[in-house]
Amino acid sequence: MPYATPLQDFRFALKELAGLDDVLKLPGFEEVTPDLVDAILEENGRFVEQAVAPLNVPGDTQPPVWKDGQVSATPGYAQGFKDYAAGGWQGLQHPAVWGGQGLPKLVAAAPGENIQAASLAFSLCPMLTDGVIEAVLTVGSDAQRKQYVPNLIGGKWTGTMNLTEPQAGSDLAQVATRAVKQDDGSYRLTGQKIFITYGEHDLAENIIHLVLARTPDAPAGVKGISLFIVPKFLVQADGSLGKRNDVWCASLEHKLGIHGSPTAVLLYGSGKGDVGEGAIGYLVGEQNRGLEYMFIMMNAARYSVGQQGIGVSERAYQHALAYARERVQGRAVEGSAGAVAIVRHPDVQRMLMTMKALTEAARAVSYVAAAAHDKGTHHPDPEQRARNRAFYEYLVPIVKGFSTENAVEVASLGIQVHGGMGFIEEAGAAQFYRDARILPIYEGTTAIQANDLVGRKTQRDGGATAHAAIAAMRETLRAVEAEASSAAAGERDGLRLLRDNLDGAIQAYEAGVAFILEQLAANVRAAYSSSVPYLMLAGVVHGGWQMARAVLACRRHIAAGSTDPFHASKVATGLFYAAHILPRSLALSAAVRSGVVADACGASLDIA
Amino acid sequence: MPYATPLQDFRFALKELAGLDDVLKLPGFEEVTPDLVDAILEENGRFVEQAVAPLNVPGDTQPPVWKDGQVSATPGYAQGFKDYAAGGWQGLQHPAVWGGQGLPKLVAAAPGENIQAASLAFSLCPMLTDGVIEAVLTVGSDAQRKQYVPNLIGGKWTGTMNLTEPQAGSDLAQVATRAVKQDDGSYRLTGQKIFITYGEHDLAENIIHLVLARTPDAPAGVKGISLFIVPKFLVQADGSLGKRNDVWCASLEHKLGIHGSPTAVLLYGSGKGDVGEGAIGYLVGEQNRGLEYMFIMMNAARYSVGQQGIGVSERAYQHALAYARERVQGRAVEGSAGAVAIVRHPDVQRMLMTMKALTEAARAVSYVAAAAHDKGTHHPDPEQRARNRAFYEYLVPIVKGFSTENAVEVASLGIQVHGGMGFIEEAGAAQFYRDARILPIYEGTTAIQANDLVGRKTQRDGGATAHAAIAAMRETLRAVEAEASSAAAGERDGLRLLRDNLDGAIQAYEAGVAFILEQLAANVRAAYSSSVPYLMLAGVVHGGWQMARAVLACRRHIAAGSTDPFHASKVATGLFYAAHILPRSLALSAAVRSGVVADACGASLDIA
Repeated sequence: MPYATPLQDFRFALKELAGLDDVLKLPGFEEVTPDLVDAILEENGRFVEQAVAPLNVPGDTQPPVWKDGQVSATPGYAQGFKDYAAGGWQGLQHPAVWGGQGLPKLVAAAPGENIQAASLAFSLCPMLTDGVIEAVLTVGSDAQRKQYVPNLIGGKWTGTMNLTEPQAGSDLAQVATRAVKQDDGSYRLTGQKIFITYGEHDLAENIIHLVLARTPDAPAGVKGISLFIVPKFLVQADGSLGKRNDVWCASLEHKLGIHGSPTAVLLYGSGKGDVGEGAIGYLVGEQNRGLEYMFIMMNAARYSVGQQGIGVSERAYQHALAYARERVQGRAVEGSAGAVAIVRHPDVQRMLMTMKALTEAARAVSYVAAAAHDKGTHHPDPEQRARNRAFYEYLVPIVKGFSTENAVEVASLGIQVHGGMGFIEEAGAAQFYRDARILPIYEGTTAIQANDLVGRKTQRDGGATAHAAIAAMRETLRAVEAEASSAAAGERDGLRLLRDNLDGAIQAYEAGVAFILEQLAANVRAAYSSSVPYLMLAGVVHGGWQMARAVLACRRHIAAGSTDPFHASKVATGLFYAAHILPRSLALSAAVRSGVVADACGASLDIA
Repeated sequence: MPYATPLQDFRFALKELAGLDDVLKLPGFEEVTPDLVDAILEENGRFVEQAVAPLNVPGDTQPPVWKDGQVSATPGYAQGFKDYAAGGWQGLQHPAVWGGQGLPKLVAAAPGENIQAASLAFSLCPMLTDGVIEAVLTVGSDAQRKQYVPNLIGGKWTGTMNLTEPQAGSDLAQVATRAVKQDDGSYRLTGQKIFITYGEHDLAENIIHLVLARTPDAPAGVKGISLFIVPKFLVQADGSLGKRNDVWCASLEHKLGIHGSPTAVLLYGSGKGDVGEGAIGYLVGEQNRGLEYMFIMMNAARYSVGQQGIGVSERAYQHALAYARERVQGRAVEGSAGAVAIVRHPDVQRMLMTMKALTEAARAVSYVAAAAHDKGTHHPDPEQRARNRAFYEYLVPIVKGFSTENAVEVASLGIQVHGGMGFIEEAGAAQFYRDARILPIYEGTTAIQANDLVGRKTQRDGGATAHAAIAAMRETLRAVEAEASSAAAGERDGLRLLRDNLDGAIQAYEAGVAFILEQLAANVRAAYSSSVPYLMLAGVVHGGWQMARAVLACRRHIAAGSTDPFHASKVATGLFYAAHILPRSLALSAAVRSGVVADACGASLDIA
């Protein structure tokens, strides 16, 4: 089943939900015209369909091979990455002065989602490289920028993020890799890093590892971690590659999914390179501020992983829809002469619509977030900047958590639509289910996102950002109410359902926010017991808000004479979301507010 | 992580929720004493832990191998099956006169769940064999019973069910395998069957295939399907094996999970055997009644697959809990000197408690169903028999659908508890996630179960069985209310939450039943659009009912002086279910009752 870029959906969400036109008017984006955005989306669609989507299955069935510390990537990946860089896609969001295109985050969002939809395993290499570019540009020295960034943007080199160690997963305070300063100002690193995505491969000449490590005199915990650049091959003064550094891939992990992405165990300082013992590394920014720097990349990476959830969902949906249209089985429920395509069966429709509605809602939330990012960084009014930045930061854990939890559900439904064939690997649906499962885990599990949402994003401002969103949702609610009152008789029921269920959802969300704020003072364990349900509640309601806005926008087009089935379809999807997804807010809000039960769980889990 | 039989949970659910003592008093079960049941559970626990559980990982990593039509099973499986039969486990439910033990379904339920928990892939062979035994005993001739049943119960032979063909999955009307009568009264079968579990293997001397096929003069559709016995090796008059029949395994499927179970493509009548062209088969029962007979087996098989869901959930839970107790990461949310085991973190507790609560609720519902089966077949009072039979039949699609959808959720949470390690195959959590995914599909997808629940089980009796259950739930509700009023202050809040959420859930369920009954008359598509949410709604509420009964029973023990942590743990799990799972009924009921939106879905899925 070939992947098709959902171009019309991208454009709709960008323009009519995220306010692309307003973003393009921000200072600094003068050269980004609507026509240019259109051209980028179209060119990206062509490139991704032709060069990236075909890499998805081979990545799964012919994973990278490790031999004596060397890793050969899946056939086709090296060419795909070369084409990717040659097309300028690695530089989309990065400044023009460094060879990038300096686009708003909002404009880069759709191409980013698209490549991840086409091949999640492949897309991780450019995603990680993006993070390294952003970190070096933000906190690296000018010399470091010049030395590394052009080759990373140009696709000659790739980048990795080295956080995790066997004893330090979610808890980075436990990082133990050592970095000892040398006379020449460089450092020697010793330690073991695990779960390093694209930690070793043959897609590019060199790999630039960003590594969290601890200097001998550093304080314990997260305040003693520094960030280092450790290139696989040292870079000489003239930019050419020098000695092989002392960082080695000990093995690749055998994973449930994203087989095409080599997940490496990296050993620093085993003495096998050309440089003696200890990997040579260079401090980035100031000592002991590594975690803070890593968070710069992590916020961007978390947003990207959220987009991966949307991309995998989109692809799983397309795959299931194609199968459901083709597979003939059983008669129609109303009666039919013979067997019909299964897409006619009510429950298959329910499953496909659930997949579609969750995907479109998550996408809309993610683009709205990207627009807030751009306004938060580029708006001339400081108050607007601050408000948008807070909104973006509130939405990042939701984009990450909600979109990726959805992706697991959507991919699972994709298998179910296929029936027995869904369980057969060759049918392709199973790969999405396996691939999707990493998304709620890496770059911070859903619980980590939820703790961020509860602590930094809700508690710190006393719920101000959440309440501002709720006020804006109520404006949309009033607009839906007005639309329902003036709608034709046949359309009124659906709009009233949307109104009622959105109203109930907003109240459920408001009650959830209030509970979290209260309990943070009264019973911190109760608040954090509710954190993931609170995140999912926020996701369901923010998604429903955007779906309601989509219904209103499309009804305006239809009222103005549009006969484009896209508009009718959006309305139906929005009403489906209202009917089947928004009510989840009731269950989630009740779970959030039941924190009192949390105290008893320990006993039930037989914790001594 | 070794598997441990949850013996205390089995006993509790059997005795205090499903009324084991009443079942043992039914006519026909006089020889089954409580002591005997205890001995069976203990012996089963020992056997399963020692002989079956160790087969689980090898089945996944060393799947059966096909070569020239022969299939070699996973190493250890042949011995495991031999031991299984030697232990008498294959005959648990079958009549003593045929070499079985003639136990009530309720008594056989726990051992059945236990073996499936220990190794799902392995357990499929005895499960299918059970179905063949039951079908031959129920509708076979006396000669057929004598010829096949003792060797099937004794484990010399195994059995399979052959329904699916490439064009006939859920829609058995499309079955095209032909059966032509021969002069000697036997038939010759020609056709292709797919997805045949244990269709070929080397665990036993012979394989008895039960095959749906169509005689040349048969009417079209499901009323023209007959059932045939087709042995892999013909059985001679003296019981010894004769010629190799013309049924061949063309290939094995490459599946997402249950790798240890060989899923065969079987060709009937390719002319390669010792019998000339066409597989020799023997009609079972009357011609054209094959589907009806197959349903005899299917109801039992659906119940068993529901138990598989519970078993996989139990094992995934044990696996995740063990990891969470061992893995140290991060400080306690209330503050702690150093890092703590992750089982101390609130969201890990939420996940583990969700896994535990869903597993225990589904188990309780399944045992209550088994008790209803036994009363439905053995109760001296015909009215009681009829009522219990209707209740059992109402519960079967719920046991199948709810327990298996839960299993996917539980296995997915099991990965999440592991964090990044969950995605690494060697950690073992991923296997449950892969294995579980077949459960909502085979033996009738969740939609097929839901259609059965809507049509045969709710519509036919005008909702009488559902309403009887609701009345019984309200009795439990009153008991919870009384318990809350008399409880100590510190315990009252939890019991009130249970009361309120159970009350809301029962109302939500009642409204769902009412909607289904109305819409079946008004708008059949709306009713069937709601069928899966209705099934899940029923599952959540029936599960909550049993959890409430468990809370009451355990509080009685505690009031009587019990200090067994098991009782306190059950109470906590029941309250957790009330807080976090029962509210799902609100979302599900709202989705059920939104059938009006269903009409618009077609447009949104671009159906021409």
